[in-house]
Amino acid sequence: MKQLHEKISLEGRVLSEEVLKVDSFLNHQIDPGLMQAIGEEFSRRFKNDRITKILTIESSGIAPSVMAGLIMGIPVVFARKRASLTLTEGLISAEVKSFTKQTVNTISVSGDYITADDRLLIIDDFLANGQAALGLLDIADQAGASVAGVGIVIEKGFQPGGRLLRSQGVRVESLAIIDSLADGKAVFREEAETR
Amino acid sequence: MKQLHEKISLEGRVLSEEVLKVDSFLNHQIDPGLMQAIGEEFSRRFKNDRITKILTIESSGIAPSVMAGLIMGIPVVFARKRASLTLTEGLISAEVKSFTKQTVNTISVSGDYITADDRLLIIDDFLANGQAALGLLDIADQAGASVAGVGIVIEKGFQPGGRLLRSQGVRVESLAIIDSLADGKAVFREEAETR
Repeated sequence: MKQLHEKISLEGRVLSEEVLKVDSFLNHQIDPGLMQAIGEEFSRRFKNDRITKILTIESSGIAPSVMAGLIMGIPVVFARKRASLTLTEGLISAEVKSFTKQTVNTISVSGDYITADDRLLIIDDFLANGQAALGLLDIADQAGASVAGVGIVIEKGFQPGGRLLRSQGVRVESLAIIDSLADGKAVFREEAETR
Repeated sequence: MKQLHEKISLEGRVLSEEVLKVDSFLNHQIDPGLMQAIGEEFSRRFKNDRITKILTIESSGIAPSVMAGLIMGIPVVFARKRASLTLTEGLISAEVKSFTKQTVNTISVSGDYITADDRLLIIDDFLANGQAALGLLDIADQAGASVAGVGIVIEKGFQPGGRLLRSQGVRVESLAIIDSLADGKAVFREEAETR
């Protein structure tokens, strides 16, 4: 997605060979116009898939998901990383390992909002090791929902998450795939290869 | 805001005289169309205030803020409740006391994104005791930014936050003010009184 590539090239900061900081438009400050364009692109890629609901995870997955949900005319559910005082019964949970933080978090969704009638589009901001996506797929599976695919804003193609998901037969649509962050520069996989 | 009142009446669940659960459209599942209408209403109320940026807090403040930001053509910054691995330098922080959870959390914003040049609209999903709004006002103050007002989706009018903020001269625009949750029913303050 050209507009996203340009934004990453212009504003993304390469902190190391593994870390790309996009806090100016995605993870801390949010560019709503870019989120709308991202929502339109997810909508275009999944327009024939009879999606009933978008499943994402707080916090950075929410903005692109809500824009996609607006365009597709469907609700968004975000998995919580922490327990809620008023959300306790009928929870569906999964464990998500963080390689960078060396922690295991439990993410949860209410069984009221993801059911066996749903056909889900899972959206997240980043795909690196794939653990968050696997956790969301696990929740979908426990709910008996089907999953049309996973939509990712930025995939770090040099980390194993994308290959792991695709090898399990999951359709992954990443709007930008970065093959390298060497020498302080993000190198994008060609558009033709990202499908 | 009529559409919001109707949604709360239809789908809100009164769990006690103090707790209203709106997980079906705001705090867990999100109704993107309603968020767009909420964004339009915030935009209408603050259209003459030369807002440069929206400041909110993860996670439930993000969806209404991004819609308002899209309509107003300005960026959104969300304060983080937890530390980020890649967001460490130049942080502006404030403490937020939670009366319900009996905890104190530190919220943070990067000084790169809120500056003395900004005129802010602070948006949050709920206003109860006002602690989150006070924390965001504190961050704005530390950054030297001016604040045009605070936009709230649902104000619990029987809790002290709204009075506290207004007594400090802060303009608070709440799209729904609930005066009572007694007898399992949300009673709204009349529209004329909410301004």
